[in-house]
Amino acid sequence: MTAFARLDHDRTARQGFPEVVFADGKTPDQVAAIMAEFAERAGAALATRAAVEHAHAVRERLPEAIYDPASRLISLGALEPPDGVDAHRVAVVCAGTSDIPVAEECAGTLSWAGIAVERRYDIGVARLERLLEVEADLRAASVCVVVAGMEGALPSVVGGRVACPVVAVPTSIGYGANLQGISALLGMLTSCVPGVTVVNIDNGFGAAAAANRMLRLAVAATDARAP
Amino acid sequence: MTAFARLDHDRTARQGFPEVVFADGKTPDQVAAIMAEFAERAGAALATRAAVEHAHAVRERLPEAIYDPASRLISLGALEPPDGVDAHRVAVVCAGTSDIPVAEECAGTLSWAGIAVERRYDIGVARLERLLEVEADLRAASVCVVVAGMEGALPSVVGGRVACPVVAVPTSIGYGANLQGISALLGMLTSCVPGVTVVNIDNGFGAAAAANRMLRLAVAATDARAP
Amino acid sequence: MTAFARLDHDRTARQGFPEVVFADGKTPDQVAAIMAEFAERAGAALATRAAVEHAHAVRERLPEAIYDPASRLISLGALEPPDGVDAHRVAVVCAGTSDIPVAEECAGTLSWAGIAVERRYDIGVARLERLLEVEADLRAASVCVVVAGMEGALPSVVGGRVACPVVAVPTSIGYGANLQGISALLGMLTSCVPGVTVVNIDNGFGAAAAANRMLRLAVAATDARAP
Amino acid sequence: MTAFARLDHDRTARQGFPEVVFADGKTPDQVAAIMAEFAERAGAALATRAAVEHAHAVRERLPEAIYDPASRLISLGALEPPDGVDAHRVAVVCAGTSDIPVAEECAGTLSWAGIAVERRYDIGVARLERLLEVEADLRAASVCVVVAGMEGALPSVVGGRVACPVVAVPTSIGYGANLQGISALLGMLTSCVPGVTVVNIDNGFGAAAAANRMLRLAVAATDARAP
Amino acid sequence: MTAFARLDHDRTARQGFPEVVFADGKTPDQVAAIMAEFAERAGAALATRAAVEHAHAVRERLPEAIYDPASRLISLGALEPPDGVDAHRVAVVCAGTSDIPVAEECAGTLSWAGIAVERRYDIGVARLERLLEVEADLRAASVCVVVAGMEGALPSVVGGRVACPVVAVPTSIGYGANLQGISALLGMLTSCVPGVTVVNIDNGFGAAAAANRMLRLAVAATDARAP
Amino acid sequence: MTAFARLDHDRTARQGFPEVVFADGKTPDQVAAIMAEFAERAGAALATRAAVEHAHAVRERLPEAIYDPASRLISLGALEPPDGVDAHRVAVVCAGTSDIPVAEECAGTLSWAGIAVERRYDIGVARLERLLEVEADLRAASVCVVVAGMEGALPSVVGGRVACPVVAVPTSIGYGANLQGISALLGMLTSCVPGVTVVNIDNGFGAAAAANRMLRLAVAATDARAP
Amino acid sequence: MTAFARLDHDRTARQGFPEVVFADGKTPDQVAAIMAEFAERAGAALATRAAVEHAHAVRERLPEAIYDPASRLISLGALEPPDGVDAHRVAVVCAGTSDIPVAEECAGTLSWAGIAVERRYDIGVARLERLLEVEADLRAASVCVVVAGMEGALPSVVGGRVACPVVAVPTSIGYGANLQGISALLGMLTSCVPGVTVVNIDNGFGAAAAANRMLRLAVAATDARAP
Amino acid sequence: MTAFARLDHDRTARQGFPEVVFADGKTPDQVAAIMAEFAERAGAALATRAAVEHAHAVRERLPEAIYDPASRLISLGALEPPDGVDAHRVAVVCAGTSDIPVAEECAGTLSWAGIAVERRYDIGVARLERLLEVEADLRAASVCVVVAGMEGALPSVVGGRVACPVVAVPTSIGYGANLQGISALLGMLTSCVPGVTVVNIDNGFGAAAAANRMLRLAVAATDARAP
Repeated sequence: MTAFARLDHDRTARQGFPEVVFADGKTPDQVAAIMAEFAERAGAALATRAAVEHAHAVRERLPEAIYDPASRLISLGALEPPDGVDAHRVAVVCAGTSDIPVAEECAGTLSWAGIAVERRYDIGVARLERLLEVEADLRAASVCVVVAGMEGALPSVVGGRVACPVVAVPTSIGYGANLQGISALLGMLTSCVPGVTVVNIDNGFGAAAAANRMLRLAVAATDARAP
Repeated sequence: MTAFARLDHDRTARQGFPEVVFADGKTPDQVAAIMAEFAERAGAALATRAAVEHAHAVRERLPEAIYDPASRLISLGALEPPDGVDAHRVAVVCAGTSDIPVAEECAGTLSWAGIAVERRYDIGVARLERLLEVEADLRAASVCVVVAGMEGALPSVVGGRVACPVVAVPTSIGYGANLQGISALLGMLTSCVPGVTVVNIDNGFGAAAAANRMLRLAVAATDARAP
Repeated sequence: MTAFARLDHDRTARQGFPEVVFADGKTPDQVAAIMAEFAERAGAALATRAAVEHAHAVRERLPEAIYDPASRLISLGALEPPDGVDAHRVAVVCAGTSDIPVAEECAGTLSWAGIAVERRYDIGVARLERLLEVEADLRAASVCVVVAGMEGALPSVVGGRVACPVVAVPTSIGYGANLQGISALLGMLTSCVPGVTVVNIDNGFGAAAAANRMLRLAVAATDARAP
Repeated sequence: MTAFARLDHDRTARQGFPEVVFADGKTPDQVAAIMAEFAERAGAALATRAAVEHAHAVRERLPEAIYDPASRLISLGALEPPDGVDAHRVAVVCAGTSDIPVAEECAGTLSWAGIAVERRYDIGVARLERLLEVEADLRAASVCVVVAGMEGALPSVVGGRVACPVVAVPTSIGYGANLQGISALLGMLTSCVPGVTVVNIDNGFGAAAAANRMLRLAVAATDARAP
Repeated sequence: MTAFARLDHDRTARQGFPEVVFADGKTPDQVAAIMAEFAERAGAALATRAAVEHAHAVRERLPEAIYDPASRLISLGALEPPDGVDAHRVAVVCAGTSDIPVAEECAGTLSWAGIAVERRYDIGVARLERLLEVEADLRAASVCVVVAGMEGALPSVVGGRVACPVVAVPTSIGYGANLQGISALLGMLTSCVPGVTVVNIDNGFGAAAAANRMLRLAVAATDARAP
Repeated sequence: MTAFARLDHDRTARQGFPEVVFADGKTPDQVAAIMAEFAERAGAALATRAAVEHAHAVRERLPEAIYDPASRLISLGALEPPDGVDAHRVAVVCAGTSDIPVAEECAGTLSWAGIAVERRYDIGVARLERLLEVEADLRAASVCVVVAGMEGALPSVVGGRVACPVVAVPTSIGYGANLQGISALLGMLTSCVPGVTVVNIDNGFGAAAAANRMLRLAVAATDARAP
Repeated sequence: MTAFARLDHDRTARQGFPEVVFADGKTPDQVAAIMAEFAERAGAALATRAAVEHAHAVRERLPEAIYDPASRLISLGALEPPDGVDAHRVAVVCAGTSDIPVAEECAGTLSWAGIAVERRYDIGVARLERLLEVEADLRAASVCVVVAGMEGALPSVVGGRVACPVVAVPTSIGYGANLQGISALLGMLTSCVPGVTVVNIDNGFGAAAAANRMLRLAVAATDARAP
Repeated sequence: MTAFARLDHDRTARQGFPEVVFADGKTPDQVAAIMAEFAERAGAALATRAAVEHAHAVRERLPEAIYDPASRLISLGALEPPDGVDAHRVAVVCAGTSDIPVAEECAGTLSWAGIAVERRYDIGVARLERLLEVEADLRAASVCVVVAGMEGALPSVVGGRVACPVVAVPTSIGYGANLQGISALLGMLTSCVPGVTVVNIDNGFGAAAAANRMLRLAVAATDARAP
């Protein structure tokens, strides 16, 4: 067992999702050691907010690990998806090009968890044509994760078009009165559309974990009723 | 049609939940007129944040309307619940006695929408015994709505014990560094437990709408697979 | 001349709009005295943020004054509109019923200044159908004033549909993370649509004054080129 | 078409100004690719907040592109100005030497859009003589863009001297209680002069886009009345 | 001696100004008792932020006390002014009618302290003519106290015209982005004019005490050199 | 004596703890000079927030000094612990791996002061099992120092399980709505558990100093009653 | 048992202090019912932040209850103090007359808990003579609770004079830049004196609970060593 | 004349102090050019917030310029002090070693202006003995400039001991709840001692300019009365 951290190997049972490594602020060696331990026990591991140095250290120890610089995820293997989850997909929508890293943190985490993702990027509220183009796709999704910076208006607009759960992710994209994402965060919390829920600024991983909880409910419900 | 507001009668189709009346800031007559119009069209209506004066005006026009002073809801009739939703229940948990009005806004909205609610109140993090007592009930619920003021720690603790979706509702209960609920809001947004999502301060209604979106996903999933 | 305030009778020449009375925080007698002096000199006067007590005091002295409780304006007479301004109209758009008082402060000020107003109220971003319904009207206007509380997303959406000047007015409508209108203000300042400009929270009057400056430019331009 | 961004080629028709590239946070290659696509379609392109690395990448692909380090703009070609806009000019005023980059972002954008600019820099409120010197120039302009950091008082003073539209741009120049430009922003929003409108901190580009909307109104008005 | 407060009778020796009573938050009886004790010991007393109820209680016990509702001061007698202070006067300048109560708290305190005051009210930055009218008076004063709300720009403008000490007093006059006076406070602290110093929001009394310290320095200097 | 700082050699007598060096913002030479003077007078010295450069400079002058990069402490010798303090130990608890540097600043300071420390790290509220595991150890401690970032919920949970003094230390660990530790700080200040006290963000040293004051009380009490 | 609240009768065993009633926001009947239940089980009860209406309702049911309007405490009986606590006393110090209610909430709670209190009120940092007068008393106390509003400097000054634990209580006394006590809170958290710990704004009760934890440590230490 | 800045050569006549160069954010060449122009016209020049690169550029052009790295001032020559100012001195007091750069910015500016300075550094409120040691010196000064970070309590304590003007300078020294100097700023603005005035965070230069205004008043007063 690693000396510096007590890993939580029962987390999947309790919370429906395993512990992952938040790499930012940890040394490359620490990240590699924890991922190795997770890999040994569970056959799969994920690190978020990883720099290229973390990736090097991990891949030295676990050569099959994959690093995606856009999302800053290091992934190894994949989770066993819950039965029936293949009938669902999560739409990951984002407003601008600069929001893509956060959207990809969400999308990459979902993929690692065995959940199908449909990406719809660059859907700004300044161009409704584009939104209406993808509306049918969003209505067909089981969960919509909506990522936006600046004024953060996109989750309100999407939430007004779909009946499924909408998870809003504010990003720190912007400057000045944006206050490092606070403007988008406040906008999403005060959305005029009921039932939109919000996670922390830039927290693509948290949105994926929330979507996972929702899909587990969907498949559990199906199981319960299956003959 | 009311002269002062353009009601959105198609909202259920688009968003999975009908428009309701936010009474605070409207006159008693306005609230009564809007509820009457909703009642006529849909056979059911709901007003949130209603004062007793609103209730009097509504009941003069719609004598069967019911006012609950704790939740400040005026309800008339009930929604037709989606097929299969009776297999689910939403746990509404709150931390302190003072958080009950917000919890009841959520619980009352869910009941009006035909969704079963399990209340578990007065579950503070200062007394883990009480939390462990109700843990099995929370794990049996389809969605947990967790309402807390002050430091807002309860959603983190609950989120660590259940795998279902957790909707956190910060309340404005507290004083001083509580900053009218900002401390609880920030705490919930920065929760160390992945997958907890957050709504606005005191927004019990929004949490109910979010839970409704999640349960619709669950029953839609069931329908899709049913033979 | 009133003893307590030095009125600025040349303001129209300098700034294109006369001084008006901000009634909030002044006594009814003060408001009445100032309006009387303006009326005597200019034949027209306007007070904003007036309570009913202000209106009583003014009408005792100036019986022809008109009080509108929605906008809280007391008006007397009307300004001489600049030549050619009748070819223009200002669209005043608002998001929710609760934003109407601020929208009316703007609309009423414009009317008193002899500028035609087209009201389009209750255009929330949660219902794009309604926005698309009025889009042609907005594109036909010379200036759009867009009033919204909560997440304040409407100016971004409108700004994406029209090429004319858009003046965004955040309102203090909302609760919790709304922070008395700060969420809408920050959202409008960080709009992803270029060329939207913003005034203070609840400042319908300021938006009218800005629109007046823009229309004066339009008619001056016309005059300059007229044969 | 670029793989990573869906460009909005109809934006001029809808909003009166084409899409430009916000370079900050994009890679040099991304900026170069987007500008190339714009250049191909529209014959002109503009990038804001560009670093010298962005400029190198763009000029490798588009050798005729021009980089201005003061304004951080990369421009290629120029827009076709609307008919009649040559009768107008925009005064760009700034308070201190340190505000010049933001003023130049505005001025350079306007020039690229074919709009004449009159620069009046270093007009602090601490020296009214200087302001009075340029007052006649400001009164002769069609729109005044006023850029200021620190206490941001200049737009109030200018707004009191001219009748044309005034667009206030707060800058992040200052330290301590300046709060990265928040002091200037709040000062401009609470200006005692009616009709001053405000854009985000350091947003010289947004002020240019707003001036463009206003001048389009002016020339449209002229066109409408022309024999 | 009053039972509930330990009065500081040596404060004049130590700080150059006696202790006064901050009435807000004290009962009428407490205020009356403290003033009576001061009156007995020193022959003079002053209370700030007094409501009419405080005044009634004080005048019952000390019939010669005078209450001024504008400044909310209750004064009894007057201080013995320092020798030579009659050669000086303090200019108290304010921006708008609504700032007068704060200006009067300053002016009334100075008068009670035996210091001559020159009031110049309603000097907004929106009308420089008015400022230039009074400029010679301000330059003739020994200290300028400048009171302003909203964007708080007046101290910068005055500070640019005079060489004497300038004490800036932000007021809470305004709404929205004014944040109860924070916008004026930040503006004054970040003034582009060197040597302007600032006191708390609405603190007219503190400005008077600061002016008193400065005049004591002036007359002490004179004394020291006098033959 | 060092030329640039007047050291406070009587501080132990007055405050129960000697002065230490806050290295951040001082030059390596300054830190070395001050530590040398302390070492000479008192035989022991401690520097906090030291970088490796500080350590090099100190060790050049005082080769027996020890640098711990985790806690960023440079220590030399140790204090003479108060009589009887060996009967006590302070539990230092932290929530996540990233909080360890702050916890170690506390633990290392206590060790240098001759006070026994029991470390219990990685006790997150997301895993109550782990907390219950260490509960008996915490109840056996004389003082609990609880270090946590993000939502800062751990002190509330610990404070609900122990009767001894609990000193809460918020850390700046987190991102977005964490606001550099403000979320944890506000959460701890508004804890629902009475008697939890709080120190500044990341202030492990301050928590150690507080624990030292409490243990001095404990041993003083013992001494007083000893026969 | 009361229907609306689950009382925590084991809290003394776990936390060293029984549950008390926070009356603010509860109805008079609720407060009376909870106090009656506590009284029946434990023979003693305490309510904080009680209005006179709460007191009437409680005394109707429990005539021996005592209401103190200054501290807003309703107390019934008293706790059994821990053995040996009579050897200690807590100094409760406050800065100004307006801080007394918070100081009394602390002092009254301690008295109800059987702990001796020494009040030292009206000790402002503006008059060091007064502080030096009481310094010996403070050094003789086991714990100092220091209550202050405005700039909140008193805990730093006291903390520099005593070696015992110092609990700082910021109050909301002040106006303007005081921000309802935030200025005092921040000042105390950033105190230059090590080992001062802080509770929430106006939280006199919390300071008493903290002092209780510290004294329990002191007497437990004594017990442990007693022959 | 420099091309990029319009220098204000009459500022001394208007404001009593010449324009100086704020070097931060200007290029070394710009600073050198402006200083050369000032030197040519006035025989003296000063730059604040200068880095070593600025100093090199200036000294290349003006070899007699002096750079002080502690205060970050570049000075050339000195001002002609007003007649009689040699009878005065300004006490510059600071709380901690880390505050010295700000104190030196003030002291160096005063020296350049021909005003005598008395430095009293390292006077923390944690050690009153030290303050009492220097009290007589402070009482003998004409103006006290008091520089402090963290809780910023020193100006209150000094203001309670002297009758002369006190200018408080908050510094950004501290961490966490210090909020880059906001805690010290708020503390000084809400000081319980009347007549303390405040400048911006880290604004040692502004404090010197304020002291200069006060001393000019003192010597003008003397002149006026001199036979």
